[in-house]
Amino acid sequence: MSEREVLGVVHLVGAGPGAADLITVRGHRLVMSCDALVYDHLVAAELVEASQAKLKIYVGKVAGQHAMPQAKINALLVDLATRRGGPSQIVRLKGGDPFVFGRGGEEAFACLERGIPFSVVPGVSSGIAAPAAVGVPLTHRDFTRGVMFITGHARGDGDLDLPWEALVSSRFTLVFFMGVSTIERIASELIGHGLDASTPALVVQEATTPSQRHVTAELSDVANAVRIAEIKAPALLIVGQVAGLAPQLEGRRLPYAPSKPSSHRL
Amino acid sequence: MSEREVLGVVHLVGAGPGAADLITVRGHRLVMSCDALVYDHLVAAELVEASQAKLKIYVGKVAGQHAMPQAKINALLVDLATRRGGPSQIVRLKGGDPFVFGRGGEEAFACLERGIPFSVVPGVSSGIAAPAAVGVPLTHRDFTRGVMFITGHARGDGDLDLPWEALVSSRFTLVFFMGVSTIERIASELIGHGLDASTPALVVQEATTPSQRHVTAELSDVANAVRIAEIKAPALLIVGQVAGLAPQLEGRRLPYAPSKPSSHRL
Repeated sequence: MSEREVLGVVHLVGAGPGAADLITVRGHRLVMSCDALVYDHLVAAELVEASQAKLKIYVGKVAGQHAMPQAKINALLVDLATRRGGPSQIVRLKGGDPFVFGRGGEEAFACLERGIPFSVVPGVSSGIAAPAAVGVPLTHRDFTRGVMFITGHARGDGDLDLPWEALVSSRFTLVFFMGVSTIERIASELIGHGLDASTPALVVQEATTPSQRHVTAELSDVANAVRIAEIKAPALLIVGQVAGLAPQLEGRRLPYAPSKPSSHRL
Repeated sequence: MSEREVLGVVHLVGAGPGAADLITVRGHRLVMSCDALVYDHLVAAELVEASQAKLKIYVGKVAGQHAMPQAKINALLVDLATRRGGPSQIVRLKGGDPFVFGRGGEEAFACLERGIPFSVVPGVSSGIAAPAAVGVPLTHRDFTRGVMFITGHARGDGDLDLPWEALVSSRFTLVFFMGVSTIERIASELIGHGLDASTPALVVQEATTPSQRHVTAELSDVANAVRIAEIKAPALLIVGQVAGLAPQLEGRRLPYAPSKPSSHRL
């Protein structure tokens, strides 16, 4: 560690689901005023462009390449915070919420181990915003007593390793993150474990951005519908009776017109 | 319905978990600029005070009394939006997110039925913010593949009516909303269905506000710990291995110091 006496502060900030104005007021203030900004590919470009930070470091995916490995991001945050003459306010800006499938916990522990002070600024999770963006009330009490956020990302060995029995028997609304590439497997496991094949399912791509698109289908047909519509990641899969409300509520919903030019993502 | 030709627009806005600056930028702009503001008791007072709305209507709980019944709130929104010469921009400001145990779905349907245009502005759910506020990474991949948000509110007949078997066998992080009064029952059902009595549990009261307090305990002892610490609603109960990380991360976490006077709730 450097000999610098006063360490920089790391703020783990949720950027929200995509639209630049769905970050929190606190997060926005930190992004605008920080000295160093370390940001992901799911963050609205306007936020990065408007930031006054002298250092702006992109750690997201480049087309066809992997994102910076997590260990390297952790090391970067530690380096920035301990560097002599380095930035004093460091913002780590992450899509959605830092602690919901965001690996913000690993960054928090990296700071903790080196004695670096940090704060967590929560964000609107896409797991909540994507259903809302197409009119789906996730926990409508006429239909369910709860909701699950589940990672649909397969492990290195390709196994999904999910408690299918519990998912199905809960009768909760199911929201899968990072589940587009595994959607066929998810649908067949859910049906195989007893969920009705006609259960409504919904996939929302890039919610709250101008690229937002969605498809609704019965669970048995949703993988096919996603293929036909060419829905791509990042996208969320929602399974449950509430997903069937989208066509009703979507029709009357007011597409919110931001006063600024439409947002684009990095 | 009135004969007014242009209906008002209803914005269902999430106020976030408690601190005034954890609302989204979009929500903040709408609260400040609307003509009519209909708000709950879990909303930061600064937001209501700073709003330029000519009409500000409180529909939350008064000490010892019930909140305005949902049907009456729905009728109020419809009345405001259809009233001749009435407000054109109506904000319905709700604690957390409007569609996560917020009954925003019922308000959306009330608008839908009367042809009133509406938008949904998502908010940071307290289910996400409360764990983050005490350093708990909800979905840390070393510990879990998902998280459940569950209502701990008992039905009219006192029954909790939850799929306990699925909750326990999922091995997901469990987050109970409105579960303080039912905490003893929740803990005993979880243990009765096979969850280890020593599983870490955490209760956070009024997260992100100056009244924030929390206790951590083993699941078998958490009801007792809540009683001794006199933790009161609104509070969240988090059960799972990640809840055990709070004491570690809390110690080094930087209490974020807002530049404005500390927030208070209505």
